[in-house]
Amino acid sequence: MMVRFPLLVLVLIICALRCRMAKAESSPESGNGYTLASVREALVKQEDTIIYGLIERAKFPSNSHAYDKDYAAIKGFCGSLVEFVVKNTEALQAKAGRYKNPEENPFFPEYLPPSMVPSYPFTQILHPGAASININKSIWKMYFQEFLPLLATSGDDGNYAQTAATDLSLLQAISRRIHYGKFVAEVKFRDAPQDYEPLIRAKDKEGLMKLLTFTSVEEMVRKRVEKKAAVFGQEVSLNGEEEDNQKPKFDPSLASRLYQKWVIPFTKEVQVDYLLRRLD
Amino acid sequence: MMVRFPLLVLVLIICALRCRMAKAESSPESGNGYTLASVREALVKQEDTIIYGLIERAKFPSNSHAYDKDYAAIKGFCGSLVEFVVKNTEALQAKAGRYKNPEENPFFPEYLPPSMVPSYPFTQILHPGAASININKSIWKMYFQEFLPLLATSGDDGNYAQTAATDLSLLQAISRRIHYGKFVAEVKFRDAPQDYEPLIRAKDKEGLMKLLTFTSVEEMVRKRVEKKAAVFGQEVSLNGEEEDNQKPKFDPSLASRLYQKWVIPFTKEVQVDYLLRRLD
Repeated sequence: MMVRFPLLVLVLIICALRCRMAKAESSPESGNGYTLASVREALVKQEDTIIYGLIERAKFPSNSHAYDKDYAAIKGFCGSLVEFVVKNTEALQAKAGRYKNPEENPFFPEYLPPSMVPSYPFTQILHPGAASININKSIWKMYFQEFLPLLATSGDDGNYAQTAATDLSLLQAISRRIHYGKFVAEVKFRDAPQDYEPLIRAKDKEGLMKLLTFTSVEEMVRKRVEKKAAVFGQEVSLNGEEEDNQKPKFDPSLASRLYQKWVIPFTKEVQVDYLLRRLD
Repeated sequence: MMVRFPLLVLVLIICALRCRMAKAESSPESGNGYTLASVREALVKQEDTIIYGLIERAKFPSNSHAYDKDYAAIKGFCGSLVEFVVKNTEALQAKAGRYKNPEENPFFPEYLPPSMVPSYPFTQILHPGAASININKSIWKMYFQEFLPLLATSGDDGNYAQTAATDLSLLQAISRRIHYGKFVAEVKFRDAPQDYEPLIRAKDKEGLMKLLTFTSVEEMVRKRVEKKAAVFGQEVSLNGEEEDNQKPKFDPSLASRLYQKWVIPFTKEVQVDYLLRRLD
């Protein structure tokens, strides 16, 4: 009995979750096309983009000159080459309308010119408070100070502009995945407001974090991401071809580590931040 | 005897090619780090980048507004949104030094500001005539008029800036692969100048094209690229996970078609163009 009880609880929780998911999928309140199922699918797709980005960045060595504030010395610009590339690329993508989509969050919002293209009717399901949530400064710091030294082998091939462009694509993919937490939180909230409202009113961050945490799901995501890294990062050759270079493009466990240590915790941080504003 | 003779010839050709390859790998004349083996490895790696790029572009629908000259109407700019994004991104990457690497070729060379970063000692093995070879106008036309309609499903999700950025990354990867023909031609020339010189002096384009064509190698490349597209484009899930969405990210035979119809012929065009200037 002692052993069976937790098992029974687990089965009941799973049933309850499945019912909720089914409800969210069919509910008209579930947010104009955003459902638990569609949000899950988007997160899974975004994993692929992040893995391709990791492989592409790992093709270049560390190229430390790209990150050295004293190296570039570009007239009229104070900062490293990667800052130059990211700030200016974001500015021109802003003119082209990138940040009108509520799924996108810039790294340097203070430098953004307005969009210069006709507006598109993106589905608006988020609470207006979402617009003020942007943790890209933390993502930037994590990426350059902690993650990149693990990913890039030391060396210098002079391709600083290309390296910076690859950093930007990868950063954008990681940022989109993390800030997608706003949509995850909104869909979860609409699905069970009675569970969230008391915690939100009590500003109970810890309680919200507990309600959002499913250890077994997180474990599954990490395993899937590592498997994707192994599949997408393998050398593919035809039968009979010589295989000169069979080392993997990067260590697949790094993808899992990125998710465990940063992507998942940051996503939950965004979810809690969003929920705390949800009733304002 | 009638049957054996062509077989013997084939074996002799293969032996001769292998000897050449071994010679090129060890020869000090083979170009400061560029050898037949290293050039082959670079081409194989570039396939992966192109496949990831195809998958990323296929994630978006056609988004035709991005290519419509009348849609964007950006003040002070005449052209489509994709032209706006490509021209401006190239300009800022030029400032960051991208085009100092002889492996890179811009789509809009006429709009490029000079590099603003210290110069890097890229290996210079090409004949100076290489700098005037740029077939990006043909690549641009092929990509937007012929290939993209095959790759992107019809539809509009409003992510025009993101789509244009994805187009640019893919175009850059395809362009790099095709213009790498300059390095392929240089290494082949250094390896057997006696075969090339008479044809170059006679301006014998057809003869050069024949000398550069190995149908079985081209066939192998196409097969490998299609296999890569199938491997990298598959949905990866853990055992026991539900698989809601098992359609491939794009049709792998499209990758093979891209190579057969455009990448391989354009690369050979670059090689011939380069060789014709090699003795100037």
